[in-house]
Amino acid sequence: MTTVFGDRLAAAIEEKGAPVLLGLDPHLEMLPPPFAGAADERRPVAERAELVARFCIELTDVCADRVPAVKPQSAFFERLGSHGVAAFERVVDHARARGLLVVGDVKRGDIATTAEAYAKAFFAPPGGVGACDAITVSPYLGLDTLEPFEKEARRAGGGLFVLVRTSNPGSGAWQGHGTPPVSELVARGVDELGRATVGESGFASIGAVCGATHPDQLAQWRRLMPRAFLLLPGYGAQGATAKDVVPAFDARGRGAIVASSRGIAFAYKGASGAADWKSAASHALDAMRADLAHALRS
Amino acid sequence: MTTVFGDRLAAAIEEKGAPVLLGLDPHLEMLPPPFAGAADERRPVAERAELVARFCIELTDVCADRVPAVKPQSAFFERLGSHGVAAFERVVDHARARGLLVVGDVKRGDIATTAEAYAKAFFAPPGGVGACDAITVSPYLGLDTLEPFEKEARRAGGGLFVLVRTSNPGSGAWQGHGTPPVSELVARGVDELGRATVGESGFASIGAVCGATHPDQLAQWRRLMPRAFLLLPGYGAQGATAKDVVPAFDARGRGAIVASSRGIAFAYKGASGAADWKSAASHALDAMRADLAHALRS
Repeated sequence: MTTVFGDRLAAAIEEKGAPVLLGLDPHLEMLPPPFAGAADERRPVAERAELVARFCIELTDVCADRVPAVKPQSAFFERLGSHGVAAFERVVDHARARGLLVVGDVKRGDIATTAEAYAKAFFAPPGGVGACDAITVSPYLGLDTLEPFEKEARRAGGGLFVLVRTSNPGSGAWQGHGTPPVSELVARGVDELGRATVGESGFASIGAVCGATHPDQLAQWRRLMPRAFLLLPGYGAQGATAKDVVPAFDARGRGAIVASSRGIAFAYKGASGAADWKSAASHALDAMRADLAHALRS
Repeated sequence: MTTVFGDRLAAAIEEKGAPVLLGLDPHLEMLPPPFAGAADERRPVAERAELVARFCIELTDVCADRVPAVKPQSAFFERLGSHGVAAFERVVDHARARGLLVVGDVKRGDIATTAEAYAKAFFAPPGGVGACDAITVSPYLGLDTLEPFEKEARRAGGGLFVLVRTSNPGSGAWQGHGTPPVSELVARGVDELGRATVGESGFASIGAVCGATHPDQLAQWRRLMPRAFLLLPGYGAQGATAKDVVPAFDARGRGAIVASSRGIAFAYKGASGAADWKSAASHALDAMRADLAHALRS
């Protein structure tokens, strides 16, 4: 069994038959009725965090057979302080126990031994509690600051997804500045950093976050980072379609994974006609899988 | 009593008579002998986190009368998972109870409601446990992603320090790219974002992190962000001197704060001749205060 993250992700996507990354974003104010108490500030924080953990665990169970990986968003857990972080750890451990890969969406970034401490926090936490398979990292501080993350990831058989071009409307102002733009330099850095990590699948353990909301750029990212897994946010709620994401995949339909958070988790808020939040999430996941499969076949 | 962060920081610096920001960076492997057990992986995590919290609290007490603010580095707490985050919260609360301002060095950054969740985590945590006065934020995702942070900071009377130019050797590769460089665009963004927050002191609540290891740039940052507090890392261990940081201050010697972490906390490792870690830290702090006072007078 390989311990190279790129290989593990490629295998997991093939096994589950869909490049879907289930976002676990427990917005306190959007949780389905059984968990609505998480937003109630009069309740003890430990109780609120328990509701957050239970929601994420139940959502993971609904989807586990049909997704290769989950992406818990740290911000929504941290919002409940140390109790929330304990919930994050439980959610991570549950997903791994279900055989899923876990991409911690933490967007950390810092220098030298501080970067190393963050990397250890997520790849080698004490007692292994809450260990992620990969994390997202922010590159503003420079390529040298990604190296401690890469080193710790490699040691743990894990991976990184470096922010290259994010999905928000204002992402171009600074990421797109210069000729070539900064984001292109970061992409070249991702390719360089990942070279030594390429596994049997042909993919590296260092991937990139590339917003699907900029579909005209995806072919360029694919070309600049031929060995990188591209993590694509922006599908669904933010407006990107299955057709939009196709250029992020290689000729064999591999090398990218499409994130969806609220489109699945909070599908119950739509007019899906589903009787409860789990059915709504399940139907939304099936629809997304079919949507991507159709686009990738065409 | 003002609730504008820029005013609170200006007043605190004046009261304590030195623009020193005490970094609380509990590198597990560098803690003084009484706390060395924090690095022992065979110990229960809760015990290790307790040692980390005690070290930071005792260091804060040693320095409290002579520094306006402390800057706990989240990475070293997160390294111990949720127990470490609980220690971070205790350290923050202790410093505030001692009348110090707390700058959470968390370098978070994300989009939209996710950015808002991070901001609430640090400015409006549940029950007020671990609430920071300001935090550091990373700007790679764009100016639009700093707005939710600014909004939550303002609501809490708090502030931000946006990374403009970091102190590490590789900081220029991407931050310095383009004409004008990206870091200059970020500086203009900091100035713009802070305009509505300028208090009676003339300073805004939105500051900037500018590495003192690039002394030739500091006058430029001062000019581009006339109302921003500049947070200067890089003094001491990373090589910057008191003379180097002078251009970051305005004509009246105001508007900047110099961070020192290991130079004070781990002074006991040097050849100071001090009998114990607290005396060593105390002497190092006095030396830094005198060093800065001398340079700013010249």
